[in-house]
Amino acid sequence: MSEVSTIKITKTTKSRLSETDLKNVPFGKIFTDHMLVADFVNGAWQEPEILPYQPLSFDPSLSAIHYGQSIFEGIKAYHNVRNETVIFRPYDNFARFNQSAVRMQMPEVPEEIFIEGMKELINLDKAWIPGYDNHALYIRPFMFSTDTFIGVRPSSTYKFMIILAPTGPYYSKPVRIAVEEKYTRAAPGGVGQAKNAGNYGASLKPTSDAQAQGYDQILWTDAFEHKWLQEVGTMNVFFVLKDKVLTPSLEEGTILDGVTRRSAVVVLREMGLNVEERKVSIDELIDEYKKGNFLEAFGTGTAATISPIKELAYKDEHLVFDLEKSSQTSIELGKRLSDIRLGIVEDVHGWIEKI
Amino acid sequence: MSEVSTIKITKTTKSRLSETDLKNVPFGKIFTDHMLVADFVNGAWQEPEILPYQPLSFDPSLSAIHYGQSIFEGIKAYHNVRNETVIFRPYDNFARFNQSAVRMQMPEVPEEIFIEGMKELINLDKAWIPGYDNHALYIRPFMFSTDTFIGVRPSSTYKFMIILAPTGPYYSKPVRIAVEEKYTRAAPGGVGQAKNAGNYGASLKPTSDAQAQGYDQILWTDAFEHKWLQEVGTMNVFFVLKDKVLTPSLEEGTILDGVTRRSAVVVLREMGLNVEERKVSIDELIDEYKKGNFLEAFGTGTAATISPIKELAYKDEHLVFDLEKSSQTSIELGKRLSDIRLGIVEDVHGWIEKI
Repeated sequence: MSEVSTIKITKTTKSRLSETDLKNVPFGKIFTDHMLVADFVNGAWQEPEILPYQPLSFDPSLSAIHYGQSIFEGIKAYHNVRNETVIFRPYDNFARFNQSAVRMQMPEVPEEIFIEGMKELINLDKAWIPGYDNHALYIRPFMFSTDTFIGVRPSSTYKFMIILAPTGPYYSKPVRIAVEEKYTRAAPGGVGQAKNAGNYGASLKPTSDAQAQGYDQILWTDAFEHKWLQEVGTMNVFFVLKDKVLTPSLEEGTILDGVTRRSAVVVLREMGLNVEERKVSIDELIDEYKKGNFLEAFGTGTAATISPIKELAYKDEHLVFDLEKSSQTSIELGKRLSDIRLGIVEDVHGWIEKI
Repeated sequence: MSEVSTIKITKTTKSRLSETDLKNVPFGKIFTDHMLVADFVNGAWQEPEILPYQPLSFDPSLSAIHYGQSIFEGIKAYHNVRNETVIFRPYDNFARFNQSAVRMQMPEVPEEIFIEGMKELINLDKAWIPGYDNHALYIRPFMFSTDTFIGVRPSSTYKFMIILAPTGPYYSKPVRIAVEEKYTRAAPGGVGQAKNAGNYGASLKPTSDAQAQGYDQILWTDAFEHKWLQEVGTMNVFFVLKDKVLTPSLEEGTILDGVTRRSAVVVLREMGLNVEERKVSIDELIDEYKKGNFLEAFGTGTAATISPIKELAYKDEHLVFDLEKSSQTSIELGKRLSDIRLGIVEDVHGWIEKI
């Protein structure tokens, strides 16, 4: 980062940090003192600005509310063991954000705004990074359309923002998951690979229905046969068999190309495991489970990190995992990723961005 | 409507009506003097209120922006030939709005707020209804989630609003349409039948790509084979053959159950035509076109009303319609619907709601 910031900063006159219990902060409800804002107007990005965190004003005809041009990312920053402030793979999220922008017919955000703006903002609010195990500063870059017009067309104006939320663990315990047989998250040619607001809104009823049956989340299946596994709620998913680790592949464009997923594939291979990214059907998993070969399942995500799965339910089949005995892989993977983030081991992949 | 309103009204002190050219008003950019607002808090709808049209304040973590719980409707009001103010089939839109709400895990809006609130609002701003051919007052009810929380879960608070926009014709000329071969709007089990914001945002890039090729809109096809026809942009679609009229059926839940579509099916049957609601493939249409049996195509929608299609393009096939010679059906349908709305013929179906 350049020594002299080029971003205009207006500091808060009244920090809320002293009233915040960083150790027990709930996920996603408490935001730091400042936010980054940049407007896209007349075909060009205007100078970004850092302002005190504050409400925005919008017209009831705001395009994003009516037509859903709205995308986001989730990234985390940490204090490492040398008390440096680090961000995990922000360039990966930056690239994905702009891929989402293209799919949603929104302008791409330049690196000077996304990456440099993020660093500047975190630097200003770094005292908000919780110094506790499994805690982090959750970074939420997002962009939405701001035309005040209710005809269906791409907006001509947009707002890019970054807000920061100190956070503890997202899922506090291992999850029970229902394999979805009726609802569809995405089909090829749709927006399943984009991190747009609409994908999440559409997932809430199927998830709530599963929760009413006693599950925590659903494992989405393909739109055609409802047997090819996709992703879970806010996570990609991995299945550990005796001789390999399976994770659904990305080529159909129906699931999110997760940054934690991508990191997990690399680290699992470093652990000597045979990772196969390919189509995975629930039938194959049931078969392997019955043979005693299906040992472990876990989800990966920026918010969720590495989240062990306690049960996969599909029709009358319940694949139950004894987490006391069989979560070696997810525990080891989680530890290795954590060691990289915290600077306990060397970052040989160039995943860590220091501020 | 009850004589005495129960809705609290705060009138504007400065109407913008005198500065508005109702004859040349652009679609969806100019809003009337007032808006209706009702909040869902603590599990219950609060008293709706009519306020001067004004900006809202929202936190950057507004749930709707991040997770897309956002739905809307489009309805039109007119002055009929007896100078009564009438709304076309608002109860149909009311029912569909609540179906969208259920799919998006949002609370249903009660009739007292949706219908009575709409009538009250229109009554207050009825001087804004343009008295010109093909003009109307476009009514936009919408609801979005308002929690300030960036975890993925259904919001616990929502805002329902109605805003009104005086409007002229939406498409000013017959449209050229490309049949989509790559992108997907919806698959069974998805949210294609819901009028949620995300569906529209996802449609913009495919539409823009087609526009770059010289087309006005795309005709969506199914997610699996890209040959079963779905809907067009903001319209349902009808194909007039020599001995029947075809329109894609609703049973897969991938297309919008349009109120104008529903009205068109009834009126076309009254015109003595044989209307088939069923799966329609592009192959069938090309075949009929080559035999000289495919006479006419048009779209239907609240904003678009009845919109003749000039061309359907699919791979190397261009089905071109001579609108001078062959748009009798859409013209007659449009006239009959208009006569019902304007009170020139009797409303035997109970479609007209007087204020």
